[in-house]
Amino acid sequence: MLDTFFAPKSVAIVGASASLDKLGHIILKNALDSGYPGKLYPINPKGGEILGLPVYPSVSALPETPDLAVIVIPYPLVPASIQDCGEKGVPSVVVISAGFREAGIEGMNREVEVIKLAKQYNIRLIGPNCLGVIDTFTPMNVTFAAGTPPQGPIGFMSQSGALGTAILDWSLAGSRIGFSKFVSLGNKADVSEIDLMDAWVDDPNTRVILAYIEGLPDGQRFMEVARRVSRQKPVVIVKSGVTSAGSRAVSSHTGSLAGSEQAYAAAFRQSGVLRAETMQDLFDYALGFAYQPLLNGDRIAIITNAGGPGILCTDALERAGLSLARLETETTRQLQAFLPDAASAANPVDVLGDAMADRYRFALQHVAGDPNVDGLIVIVTPQAMTEIEATARAIGEMAQQSAKPILGCMMGEFRIETGVQILAEHGVPNYPFPERAAKAFAAMRDYRQLRAQPDPKIERFDVDTDKVRQIFRKVREEGRVAIGDAESREILKAYRMRIPASELAATADEAVALADRIGYPVVLKIASPDILHKTDVGGVRVGLQTATDVRDAFDLIVYRAQRYVPDARIWGCLVQEMVPQGTEILIGMSRDPQFGPLVTFGLGGIYVEALKDVTFRVAPFDRTEAMAMLGEIRSHALIEGVRGQKPLDKDAIVDALLRISQLVTDFPNIVELDINPLMVYEQGRGANSLDMRLVLSAK
Amino acid sequence: MLDTFFAPKSVAIVGASASLDKLGHIILKNALDSGYPGKLYPINPKGGEILGLPVYPSVSALPETPDLAVIVIPYPLVPASIQDCGEKGVPSVVVISAGFREAGIEGMNREVEVIKLAKQYNIRLIGPNCLGVIDTFTPMNVTFAAGTPPQGPIGFMSQSGALGTAILDWSLAGSRIGFSKFVSLGNKADVSEIDLMDAWVDDPNTRVILAYIEGLPDGQRFMEVARRVSRQKPVVIVKSGVTSAGSRAVSSHTGSLAGSEQAYAAAFRQSGVLRAETMQDLFDYALGFAYQPLLNGDRIAIITNAGGPGILCTDALERAGLSLARLETETTRQLQAFLPDAASAANPVDVLGDAMADRYRFALQHVAGDPNVDGLIVIVTPQAMTEIEATARAIGEMAQQSAKPILGCMMGEFRIETGVQILAEHGVPNYPFPERAAKAFAAMRDYRQLRAQPDPKIERFDVDTDKVRQIFRKVREEGRVAIGDAESREILKAYRMRIPASELAATADEAVALADRIGYPVVLKIASPDILHKTDVGGVRVGLQTATDVRDAFDLIVYRAQRYVPDARIWGCLVQEMVPQGTEILIGMSRDPQFGPLVTFGLGGIYVEALKDVTFRVAPFDRTEAMAMLGEIRSHALIEGVRGQKPLDKDAIVDALLRISQLVTDFPNIVELDINPLMVYEQGRGANSLDMRLVLSAK
Repeated sequence: MLDTFFAPKSVAIVGASASLDKLGHIILKNALDSGYPGKLYPINPKGGEILGLPVYPSVSALPETPDLAVIVIPYPLVPASIQDCGEKGVPSVVVISAGFREAGIEGMNREVEVIKLAKQYNIRLIGPNCLGVIDTFTPMNVTFAAGTPPQGPIGFMSQSGALGTAILDWSLAGSRIGFSKFVSLGNKADVSEIDLMDAWVDDPNTRVILAYIEGLPDGQRFMEVARRVSRQKPVVIVKSGVTSAGSRAVSSHTGSLAGSEQAYAAAFRQSGVLRAETMQDLFDYALGFAYQPLLNGDRIAIITNAGGPGILCTDALERAGLSLARLETETTRQLQAFLPDAASAANPVDVLGDAMADRYRFALQHVAGDPNVDGLIVIVTPQAMTEIEATARAIGEMAQQSAKPILGCMMGEFRIETGVQILAEHGVPNYPFPERAAKAFAAMRDYRQLRAQPDPKIERFDVDTDKVRQIFRKVREEGRVAIGDAESREILKAYRMRIPASELAATADEAVALADRIGYPVVLKIASPDILHKTDVGGVRVGLQTATDVRDAFDLIVYRAQRYVPDARIWGCLVQEMVPQGTEILIGMSRDPQFGPLVTFGLGGIYVEALKDVTFRVAPFDRTEAMAMLGEIRSHALIEGVRGQKPLDKDAIVDALLRISQLVTDFPNIVELDINPLMVYEQGRGANSLDMRLVLSAK
Repeated sequence: MLDTFFAPKSVAIVGASASLDKLGHIILKNALDSGYPGKLYPINPKGGEILGLPVYPSVSALPETPDLAVIVIPYPLVPASIQDCGEKGVPSVVVISAGFREAGIEGMNREVEVIKLAKQYNIRLIGPNCLGVIDTFTPMNVTFAAGTPPQGPIGFMSQSGALGTAILDWSLAGSRIGFSKFVSLGNKADVSEIDLMDAWVDDPNTRVILAYIEGLPDGQRFMEVARRVSRQKPVVIVKSGVTSAGSRAVSSHTGSLAGSEQAYAAAFRQSGVLRAETMQDLFDYALGFAYQPLLNGDRIAIITNAGGPGILCTDALERAGLSLARLETETTRQLQAFLPDAASAANPVDVLGDAMADRYRFALQHVAGDPNVDGLIVIVTPQAMTEIEATARAIGEMAQQSAKPILGCMMGEFRIETGVQILAEHGVPNYPFPERAAKAFAAMRDYRQLRAQPDPKIERFDVDTDKVRQIFRKVREEGRVAIGDAESREILKAYRMRIPASELAATADEAVALADRIGYPVVLKIASPDILHKTDVGGVRVGLQTATDVRDAFDLIVYRAQRYVPDARIWGCLVQEMVPQGTEILIGMSRDPQFGPLVTFGLGGIYVEALKDVTFRVAPFDRTEAMAMLGEIRSHALIEGVRGQKPLDKDAIVDALLRISQLVTDFPNIVELDINPLMVYEQGRGANSLDMRLVLSAK
């Protein structure tokens, strides 16, 4: 898929130029310098020859149909050029030119035109407004970046071209990192991260997929593809723009908790994507994945010639939730026999400051061979006796023999430079500080855990969707969007969720009759489609013990509601069973513009309001994910039962989460929803949805 | 202070050697190569000449008394050499030799001998087991590190010599970082971080003090000195060994919450020390402090030639609690007039990918001059048209004119190398990723805030220390260490803290009489010095409404206590006023081996037990710190009042914290203490200490 972008048999450079400082020249030169083996066709109406190649006036004038056209001409001419390509039958086009969506309304219209043309001619398109494409294995570089990066196992796509140039520039400074493919995505008018992941999953030259993204076109499809791709190879992403989140208006409580940041975090986790917090982390993680085997367990051994960095590394490992391997007695014995007395034969293994390469070599052999060790970090500080190069070679050779990942941590810069180079030649990434090596291992652990997640098994409960559809129809017919208690109860019932016995009373007499039937004590709540926040208008009375109480409460509630909200349509009062106190849980949902329904879970009351202690999933999700949500909140101990209390009924919470997941998936017109509270009792005693508010989309 | 270590008039190198690979040779050579202007005396019984200098057989044989002796001879000879120095009157000695405390019991004894000798001769001593000392301004390098670092404003001390070599090696790779002083502290037999801070505070060549530490000798003195020094210049510390914390046995609840990590964190914060989490952070922060003016506000402007890195930088700033400066209309207007249409004249200012140096220069001028801007981050990605060197010069020149801090972020490596060099020459630190520049600014903000803290004003309440002393005496005489309810009440009373009315009843009749006086309902609690966990033995009955209730409860409690703890001495029951329910607060204390009394504060019950939501201060602390504690816990909203509740009585909580701070300072033999709960009521209604447990030291 997309092969014609990365290994085209021939390429047309539309806008190729003889002027050295024109992008159309730089791209052609890069293509030639990169050693591209196919045919290159410079296109320019001026004709002539550029860099020894004959120039054609147009794509249609070419003697063959090129697989790829790279367009680098002023934006007004781009549509015509696409048409030219289309008529020739060119399957893939990279538009370098800027002046499209990023340049305002007019540019946006131009981009729409380009998309239309591309669709019409069945052209796949990268860009516009991008840096171009590199494949180091073809090899081919059709970017205007300064040089071609070294070959390597990393596929990198960037929504920011400039960030791409910085990364390529970095890769040019030494052979510490290499790329298989590089794509600057530009405006993503057609080809997006989703297409590239899909294309690169089967690329044998790419071991790890990296991306810098600012936004995604289709969240649900992204998740679907990422879930499949991340089973095959690590997908590591930096997502920027995280803090400028959700400024959109929200009317529900859940809405204010869930921003686009939460949606991305949930979506990445659910689809096995590793999130890097910074660009440095992105490449630190990439180096580990690209050049070393995966980490099969969490037990790390450290070999060091200095105590301090060993402790820093231990701290960082523990902080990241990894553990220090406990070496076998036999390993320790052999280390003790070989190393000087003052050395530490336990993990971290300290070969001492005067260690030459032989001690490292010996320690590496025995520690890497220890069955209790899953991965190694080898720290080398440049001390007086340190044999930097021989030690680097010892590490590199062991890494090539071992099935376990080995990360280097040569510290310093001046004396260790060649050492780092030697490590790189042996495929051992070097981290200048031990904390960064530890974090890289943590990323490997995270990836293993993400990959171990079973495929989601979405359950479907037997529910009454027709009933809900009918309620929504009525709501829409009445021109409302908000749904309060009375109708919410019907919806919950239709999705077979337990709710307190409750009925609508239009008059005080009816209320008393209902209370007699339900049994005292009861709760009375105002029933009005126009009053969502009932307590604010004094619309709720609890603990009513007698018929007189009920009669008084009814009159008072209705009187107050009429006074506070004079225009409200008042249906009467709900007479409700007074359920026993349990633990209050919040289940909510808001609709994320990228990923769709985002379900929130947390303990109710102050845990949500003051502590914002909640967690999120993109719906639909399965039982495993729902169960995981329960463990993710900080206050999860309350679910397990503290101070001698029994654990809560987790199955009942999970059941409620899954039914809400189904509801908001079944009805994409639900914009927001809050069950607050879901009253949960101890294990075996279930849960009861006391109240739900729901908002439908206006259209 | 300690001047003879850093600017000695003459130096003896004891153990100087002619063999090129001996440390005694390397140190002498480093001293010569560093351009040391004073006199150097190689000492070696073999005599002769080394590196052109005449060798003396001993320090006593020297023609003058050197200010400094550097000892680098086998450990068995070190004591004699110290004596030799002492008799000559040498004021300061650096012992490079290893084989002391780090090498087991025998080495430990040798170190004790060395310390004794040094004391006897009034010698100040650095080491043993260290790398040596560098002062780049003297200049003098008496270490065995490979080379002398560039001159600069950073004073660096390291408990790990190897880490020092790595850092020095890094500094040698380019002139991006320079040091004023470097000290490898080794075993810290005498001179410690405290002495060096004290010495460097007045050093005009040192603008920022960095330290890598693993432990501290005297926590309270460290805090005292650090508090003073950090007012003058930033002190930034990496503390390692953080996660292996407190394995010591603890009997109280508070004890299990407070580890050495919490103590360090509290002590650093209270004394104005900036904590760096990793070595990379340490130097990232140092560069900002060393070369740029301090940040006087939190409003940062970004100038960039690429959108992506600009967004990453914005994210990182927001994450760090800094804000994007809102430019003046005039600034924006001028930028708009000069920059191309597609550029962004708002912050982040995007000068576009094709920006040459002139655009940067113009933007720098106007943005740095904007009164709404406190600091700038200038991002440069190496794009096709980018003028790396001219741009670096523009940034550097602006930085030299401006009183505001400017941080560079040239991204990449290959093409930008000279640019980074030019920045460094102008004193502009460069960070390879925008997130790191943002973090450096956050460190500057933290330092400003730490420095703005007023000096602690420790209040002394008028209390009855005699009474407490008397109780403790009695406890000790009885061979106990734990203090329960009855005695705790006396202590709380002596420190004038409010407690529920309560009296000891030896018999059921007495209990009824007391209950009649206190007023019903009452609480009965077992009174026994041998029963600390009263509820575990059924030793508490609440809500007793009548004389009969009280009589029954008394008999039942005493009967049960005797059955569960047959050996317990039973004094009877406490008859206690039943106080109304308020919010439960925990105040606790445990004694940290380094820093002494560490006071814990949090909301009681599940907040402490399940959420571990607590904060710490080293006592004594003042009202400002106590007030700050209230705001630091995650659940602080509960103190302010949520869901329409009134705020709690903060003054009462602060008062309790301060009185406990005084108590544990007055009585260093208190090892642990828990008030759980302090029942706090709404504002103006005070607090009531319901229960306290207290453990004294055994000696």
